[in-house]
Amino acid sequence: MSIFSKIIAGEIPSYKIAEDDKFYAFLDIFPLVPGHTLVIPKIEVDKIYDLSDDYLQSILVFAKPIAKAIEASFACKRCGMAVVGLEVPHAHLHLVPINTMDDLNFTRGKLKLTEDELKEAQQKILEKLK
Amino acid sequence: MSIFSKIIAGEIPSYKIAEDDKFYAFLDIFPLVPGHTLVIPKIEVDKIYDLSDDYLQSILVFAKPIAKAIEASFACKRCGMAVVGLEVPHAHLHLVPINTMDDLNFTRGKLKLTEDELKEAQQKILEKLK
Repeated sequence: MSIFSKIIAGEIPSYKIAEDDKFYAFLDIFPLVPGHTLVIPKIEVDKIYDLSDDYLQSILVFAKPIAKAIEASFACKRCGMAVVGLEVPHAHLHLVPINTMDDLNFTRGKLKLTEDELKEAQQKILEKLK
Repeated sequence: MSIFSKIIAGEIPSYKIAEDDKFYAFLDIFPLVPGHTLVIPKIEVDKIYDLSDDYLQSILVFAKPIAKAIEASFACKRCGMAVVGLEVPHAHLHLVPINTMDDLNFTRGKLKLTEDELKEAQQKILEKLK
């Protein structure tokens, strides 16, 4: 069971943003910038392109209102998107509010936010998602 | 008319990889690594999340065989994916064969490939797409 499947199952707590029958979205707790969110399928597939067309057709439609809420919640030029996948073998889409290309640079150090800072980021996004 | 619309219209030449009624895929001529490909919608929309659900549902299904062909054509761990969008105001999805997170780092210097090297990368991908 991947760490992400444990998050979906509630065995590991997460700052949940949204959920439907196929996907789960939650805050990355080691974000590139505040607001950095992960969208994951509820099935364990390593590479995003190995998802069935049904999932591939749904993931960006699921992510769209979240990306717009992120964009509206943080001072940024837009919400960037990335799929890297070199660490956790469970496909995940990064949604990151970016001002510069470096805000989507996964080689730079991740932030260590406090619980309060993560809760604040979660609340901001949830408020806009309403 | 964006530079990408000119490429779709054939006014600017490109190393074409694939095309359907909604999307066009071609090599990035200043790639992060050889094989770096762009997938663009045939309509001019700045932010990817402003595409209609119809386009959002189709783009990853269109990109899937291309990503798999890229992955099979270059020595890499997998095909990474990114949408940044801070430069050209015409939504585009980057498909990049990656071995490290730095291969998807848009702040690093881009390669300057020769025409022959670009043609070779195009042929490799087209061969696998057959």
